[in-house]
Amino acid sequence: MTEDIGSRIDLYIDQHLEGSLVELSTLCAIPTVSAQGGPAMQQGAEFVAEMLRKRGFAAEVHATNGHPIVFGERRGKGDKTLLFYLHYDVQPPEPLELWESPPFEPTSRDGKLFARGVSDDKGHIQCRVSAIDAVLAAHDGELPCTIKFVIEGEEETSSDSIPGFVEKNKELLAAEACIWEFGGVNYQGTPVQYLGMRGICYVELSVETGTLDAHSGLGGSIFPNAAWRLTWALASLKGPDERIRIPGFYDAVKEPSARDLALLGELPEVAEDLKRTYGIQGFLKGLQGGVELRREEVFVPTCTICGLTAGYQGPGSKTVLPVRASAKVDFRLVPDQRPEDVLRKLRAHLDAEGFEDVKFTYLGGEPPARTDPDDPFVQMVVKSAEEVYGVEQLVNPMIGGSGPNHVFIEQLKLPIATAGIGYPGAQAHAPNENMRIDHFVAGTKHTARVIEGMGRL
Amino acid sequence: MTEDIGSRIDLYIDQHLEGSLVELSTLCAIPTVSAQGGPAMQQGAEFVAEMLRKRGFAAEVHATNGHPIVFGERRGKGDKTLLFYLHYDVQPPEPLELWESPPFEPTSRDGKLFARGVSDDKGHIQCRVSAIDAVLAAHDGELPCTIKFVIEGEEETSSDSIPGFVEKNKELLAAEACIWEFGGVNYQGTPVQYLGMRGICYVELSVETGTLDAHSGLGGSIFPNAAWRLTWALASLKGPDERIRIPGFYDAVKEPSARDLALLGELPEVAEDLKRTYGIQGFLKGLQGGVELRREEVFVPTCTICGLTAGYQGPGSKTVLPVRASAKVDFRLVPDQRPEDVLRKLRAHLDAEGFEDVKFTYLGGEPPARTDPDDPFVQMVVKSAEEVYGVEQLVNPMIGGSGPNHVFIEQLKLPIATAGIGYPGAQAHAPNENMRIDHFVAGTKHTARVIEGMGRL
Repeated sequence: MTEDIGSRIDLYIDQHLEGSLVELSTLCAIPTVSAQGGPAMQQGAEFVAEMLRKRGFAAEVHATNGHPIVFGERRGKGDKTLLFYLHYDVQPPEPLELWESPPFEPTSRDGKLFARGVSDDKGHIQCRVSAIDAVLAAHDGELPCTIKFVIEGEEETSSDSIPGFVEKNKELLAAEACIWEFGGVNYQGTPVQYLGMRGICYVELSVETGTLDAHSGLGGSIFPNAAWRLTWALASLKGPDERIRIPGFYDAVKEPSARDLALLGELPEVAEDLKRTYGIQGFLKGLQGGVELRREEVFVPTCTICGLTAGYQGPGSKTVLPVRASAKVDFRLVPDQRPEDVLRKLRAHLDAEGFEDVKFTYLGGEPPARTDPDDPFVQMVVKSAEEVYGVEQLVNPMIGGSGPNHVFIEQLKLPIATAGIGYPGAQAHAPNENMRIDHFVAGTKHTARVIEGMGRL
Repeated sequence: MTEDIGSRIDLYIDQHLEGSLVELSTLCAIPTVSAQGGPAMQQGAEFVAEMLRKRGFAAEVHATNGHPIVFGERRGKGDKTLLFYLHYDVQPPEPLELWESPPFEPTSRDGKLFARGVSDDKGHIQCRVSAIDAVLAAHDGELPCTIKFVIEGEEETSSDSIPGFVEKNKELLAAEACIWEFGGVNYQGTPVQYLGMRGICYVELSVETGTLDAHSGLGGSIFPNAAWRLTWALASLKGPDERIRIPGFYDAVKEPSARDLALLGELPEVAEDLKRTYGIQGFLKGLQGGVELRREEVFVPTCTICGLTAGYQGPGSKTVLPVRASAKVDFRLVPDQRPEDVLRKLRAHLDAEGFEDVKFTYLGGEPPARTDPDDPFVQMVVKSAEEVYGVEQLVNPMIGGSGPNHVFIEQLKLPIATAGIGYPGAQAHAPNENMRIDHFVAGTKHTARVIEGMGRL
């Protein structure tokens, strides 16, 4: 980007900051808690569509079986199209008593704006439209590329409607690249690029060995015990060596490339931060830190017990032999594992190990998906971050969490990069969620440069 | 007993049934859940003491380090003393949603009285005092023998205070024989005598791997998971072959005698009844029934998971990696195993298997103890049952459950027999605990005959 255009964009963003924060505060005041629903969901979708229309977008609110999806489009001069994926829904605000100001009354203090959703993800919606305002001002009211928006309302409840919406609207959503819903800086204030997400396969295992809990003195040596059956079935999945024992589970696993490992090597050390934050003595498998820890964190599939329930759980003792027991288990998947394949192999494994009595319910999943760090779009996004932040952007080739990025990568064949306003102190999903206003300015300037860069890609 | 006295006793019990059930219902309405404590425990103890005083007993509520113990005594004509051991505490009522009527609102339907504790053990307390009422009425207000009561409040939580109480009050408790807290009929309605109890060693295993639950996407492959540690530690205790793997666990086990096996051989087949009642498909170790099943049920020590807790247990999925997990586990012991020995071996086993991080709390225990089936008191109790039930009483040399019988057998040198109101459908320890009213009548008539018989022993 020419220095002249860059200066004009930055000046516009700085001069219009107050208007951006007012618009964002109005959006944050709508309690779009997807897990709790209610009329705020439709209201939030309509408000977001109106934000786009004000920027000359054709925008529509599409009904789904869940909460509506907002689609918006505005044509630009160039032949390239950039897609922004975002969400207007937020996490539940509870526990309310831990908020210093009410979650749906946006409040500014200490250079931060506090509100539920201000970082995840409404600040990002505002960042995109404020960047568009600046680009339009710098280009006499024209966009250098076509821009499309998909803004959903179920991201915090596993994006159930997005895969179907994307599949049905491939033409409408056609683009050359996508900017994901988050982005920002690390603890040191260094901008970080995130390029892939692990998949997930979440199941609830359950065993029922009878119809009535027995007195443990009666049945202990002769009745099947659901808690024992569950324990043994779980222990058959993974042992203390952390190796998942389901035959074929690792078949589709792709090792990280030399390039991935080199990128991990450039990331700062996090071992001590993790230990302090989570109060753990050490890591699994004797890991101390460094590339080995970061590789294990994101490029290795997992099998995690998220919950266990059986029998008596109150204070003291109850001598009961439980006939029902269940466990919540999630598998995090790495390329090229697929959740449906894990389900099939899990069933075969349980049957082969004699656990036909252990049933499971699939509670949802998504395959992993990645974007090539050497993709020209990614390179452009990384390079334009340096112009704003003054330091080279770090590139994280993969994160441990999961999301619907696979739908855009697999169905729409888009490279996905991130740019945004987040930081590790944002308390997303927790009380006192906040956005640093200087981060908002930087993220908006970065987003405007990505739009600029898209016109020249 | 003369037929005349017998008839007068039976008539009295039949005619005063309604009053007995009203008194029992009032007792059952007091939520004396020993595992959960609260003011109901003292209230229950006072109520029980008052029940005895109404029958002319000197009764006192003795404070302990746990819940109070009620002692009552009334002198009789003869030189013999009969001791009744009972308990006023009950099991926790949870899960509440499975009760057809609230657990502490006694409800009569279909010839049964429903309430937590109505069978275990408040129905037995009522049975003893109603029997005494009938005996007093038939003997012009005099007892044919001295009667003492020990009614404790911690039976459902391993009777921690009873051993010390008995040891300190050997003179006070001196007697010739003891009737235990339960008794009754089997699936066929045939009265059964129970002469020994397995011991118990109840522990809560717990693991804490950090201070803050992590997102499973972050920690799944690098953070220790308390639920996994617990699962593996449990699986190290016992495998699907049901063999307990703690080294030396079986060292002190005595095999049943030929007389024991002969008595077991006279008991009716219960396999189909057990399967139907508990809704189980079959028994462990391929057992089908017969002496083999009954021997396994009572003469083999066990390791039972009574409860499991970790992480998220609500509806749907939550991607959390739990830092705390715990399990309730009971071991049932056979002669001559001792709980303190099991604790020592359990710790050594966990340490040897690499589970130093798995702590446990001892929630109580008792050694096993037995009474000789050929004891004259036992023979009298067995014979008097036949007068009430019209069929010969079966003799079960051992039951699978546990209790503080060892204290009375070892410290007070008493033979212990049973008489009571229970039946296999009572759902003791389960939702919808109940007592059949006809069984209450029969158990009370039998108890009255035991008091009569004691005067002539």
